[in-house]
Amino acid sequence: MSDRVKFLLKEADMPKAWYNIQADLPEPLPPVLHPGTKQPIGPEDLAAIFPMAVIQQEVSTEREIEIPKPVRQIYRQWRPSPLFRARRLEKVLDTPARIYYKYEGVSPAGSHKPNTSIPQAFYNKEEGVKRICTETGAGQWGSSLALAGSLFGLEVQVFMVKVSFQQKPYRRTFMETFGAQCIASPSELTESGRAILQQHPDSTGSLGIAISEAVEMAVKTPNSKYALGSVLNHVLLHQTVTGLEAQKQMEMADDYPDVVVGCVGGGSNFGGIAFPFLGERLRKKKKIEFVAVEPAACPTLTKGLYAYDFGDTAHLTPLVKMFTLGSTFVPPGFHAGGLRYHGMAPLISHLTKLGYINPRAFHQTECFAAGILFAKAEGIIPAPEANHAVKGAIEEALKCKEEGVSRTILFNLCGHGHFDMQAYRDYMDGKLVDQAYDESELAMALSGLPSVE
Amino acid sequence: MSDRVKFLLKEADMPKAWYNIQADLPEPLPPVLHPGTKQPIGPEDLAAIFPMAVIQQEVSTEREIEIPKPVRQIYRQWRPSPLFRARRLEKVLDTPARIYYKYEGVSPAGSHKPNTSIPQAFYNKEEGVKRICTETGAGQWGSSLALAGSLFGLEVQVFMVKVSFQQKPYRRTFMETFGAQCIASPSELTESGRAILQQHPDSTGSLGIAISEAVEMAVKTPNSKYALGSVLNHVLLHQTVTGLEAQKQMEMADDYPDVVVGCVGGGSNFGGIAFPFLGERLRKKKKIEFVAVEPAACPTLTKGLYAYDFGDTAHLTPLVKMFTLGSTFVPPGFHAGGLRYHGMAPLISHLTKLGYINPRAFHQTECFAAGILFAKAEGIIPAPEANHAVKGAIEEALKCKEEGVSRTILFNLCGHGHFDMQAYRDYMDGKLVDQAYDESELAMALSGLPSVE
Repeated sequence: MSDRVKFLLKEADMPKAWYNIQADLPEPLPPVLHPGTKQPIGPEDLAAIFPMAVIQQEVSTEREIEIPKPVRQIYRQWRPSPLFRARRLEKVLDTPARIYYKYEGVSPAGSHKPNTSIPQAFYNKEEGVKRICTETGAGQWGSSLALAGSLFGLEVQVFMVKVSFQQKPYRRTFMETFGAQCIASPSELTESGRAILQQHPDSTGSLGIAISEAVEMAVKTPNSKYALGSVLNHVLLHQTVTGLEAQKQMEMADDYPDVVVGCVGGGSNFGGIAFPFLGERLRKKKKIEFVAVEPAACPTLTKGLYAYDFGDTAHLTPLVKMFTLGSTFVPPGFHAGGLRYHGMAPLISHLTKLGYINPRAFHQTECFAAGILFAKAEGIIPAPEANHAVKGAIEEALKCKEEGVSRTILFNLCGHGHFDMQAYRDYMDGKLVDQAYDESELAMALSGLPSVE
Repeated sequence: MSDRVKFLLKEADMPKAWYNIQADLPEPLPPVLHPGTKQPIGPEDLAAIFPMAVIQQEVSTEREIEIPKPVRQIYRQWRPSPLFRARRLEKVLDTPARIYYKYEGVSPAGSHKPNTSIPQAFYNKEEGVKRICTETGAGQWGSSLALAGSLFGLEVQVFMVKVSFQQKPYRRTFMETFGAQCIASPSELTESGRAILQQHPDSTGSLGIAISEAVEMAVKTPNSKYALGSVLNHVLLHQTVTGLEAQKQMEMADDYPDVVVGCVGGGSNFGGIAFPFLGERLRKKKKIEFVAVEPAACPTLTKGLYAYDFGDTAHLTPLVKMFTLGSTFVPPGFHAGGLRYHGMAPLISHLTKLGYINPRAFHQTECFAAGILFAKAEGIIPAPEANHAVKGAIEEALKCKEEGVSRTILFNLCGHGHFDMQAYRDYMDGKLVDQAYDESELAMALSGLPSVE
């Protein structure tokens, strides 16, 4: 085996199609239900908020879905992204494991999110949409959609959870630099926002409220649609470009993963790296494990229920079957804002329920410690979300050391932490504490799940 | 010509040697003088602060200097860096010009600085040094040396100009994440620092003071050396890896630059991109222009004198002949902190004096406007320093349009702006104003230049 640390594909080897795991599921996904009738919805029910190409992808069972040429043209700005062998980290850990990471921080937004914001903007543009409305929590998604909108000449309106809007002014600036409009949510612009403000004038907002505002705005404004940055099938589909590249890169490295690790919030970066390999397990019976790492303070997969639930707190969205903490559950404030969602991608949920994905939960301080260890060894400061994947990979590597076996570990380093230095400051100053979620609040949120049968 | 936007070399095509323009100078550089005797200094005069390998590079006239293998191993983490054809920007400008940019923001520190921090750390490590002391203004250099120190197991101590230390806490956090010690300068740790604090207890520091503290600390601490992130010959030498890659990438694009543009502060990123091409002009009489863009508020090349001067305000450094505004000149506060130096690399100064480099000065608001135009078209937010190069390139492209001629423009996009969103915020809020330097202060600083003959 060579001493290479970086495996980079030629542009010509960049995937020309995304991989759709719905083609290979051992059981199909439970249907999405209409919130009123509780009957399965059809494409027409989603036409008000998504372009038709995206809706078709949401339900498609074709294995390969072509990446449009204009999307590939833009992907090529930073794709294929590098795969690294973490030789210095292996040395520090003194582990027999071989650790690889796919690095998505090379995108112009610093994360994996443009993998889906670019095609979503493209499909909207193709169908004559003028404006895309969305929500953002920590700001990664809003930034990436702002970027995509700018490249395709679309207006972008981002409802940003008010507490983040205030705490992360640089994220707002990033979006505005690309010409997007960034609005603190709840706002006076929508009925949902005004209703909240009337009851709670001091509301600092939530992802659920921001989703409601963005959906409402998309529905009531001509030539406008809505876009989501995670959770849905088409989003995970777009992210598979990372796993497909990683497959070819592992071949270049003359290796194959025994375990694939990623962090999960809505589930898109994990699905992106894992699904092409999971497809091989399903089709070719390859022996390979999948570890989804979530924050212990928002433990959707490890403490949630697998049930039908709403995607937002205002209950405007359809009902999807997923692991959920209940749409009214509010996790304690922690720095990995991208992992604070109450639900989980239906595809990840389904495959976890079927036993193909092993969820693990870690507290944020141990994740920051892992991230700093990684940074010192590998030279890259991970985003707080990505620190969860780093922690998961390190745990796997230490297990190898303990058992005296060499295994190949692949994880997704989904973004850099350049916008998150305050979190590192707080950690190093000892101000970051592990907050437990409120057990009774979780019980209440779970008891409020909509009844479906 | 293809429709490609990215030109990426194979790892195997990464340069194995840096290019030393001292081999091709039409006239040799004026000697560096001892500050006391005013006689040319020898290598032994610098041995207290630099490792011998670096001192040899400083005076070498060999054309090619090998990049050590361990340095190339780390370079490979992000090198070869991509060269982009700015097709979308060309379209927005409606110019017949072909615009290319070399993108150094892909490094783990987000700028070109690791190109020299890595070899500097390597040479120090090789010679048994335990600790490197340095100064930093805006923080790019300190961050990059912290990164390099972490990878080679060296302690790094950074004296950061106090006003930046306070205004840019994230930069300090970045350095500390890599285990470096970051100290607000002036500090109580050095005689130079204490002397300043006694006279001016509220001093917010300056690059000159920070240099004095770092040099003093390096000299008086066992096993310690000093490192500089720009200005000196060896630093520019290390940066030529960018221009050497760009030469091969322009070949891939089947094109050759008519003009090479870069921003200049100390001169290292400009030297890095320009020198390999300038060497071809010197050796092969290639017709090619070089434009060095500086801030109008710190106009070293356009308003300074070409004279012997000190590198620091405390006058601890040797005397070098360079364009200078005088070592006591303090430019008005502006956001491109990396361009606030009173002097200019002796090599850049010499070649400017000889007529090979055309300096231009722009105000910061027009540079931010150019940067935002670039971001919207190309999807990358440049660092404020890099905005000066963007502005210079856009001006060249508009000149092509005016004259109805197509020329090939290459510029160095030396870093991304992810750490500088406050500057963009201020610009968009109309709070960024163009400050003129104080004419009488400049006259006074220039009149205080040391007399040499």
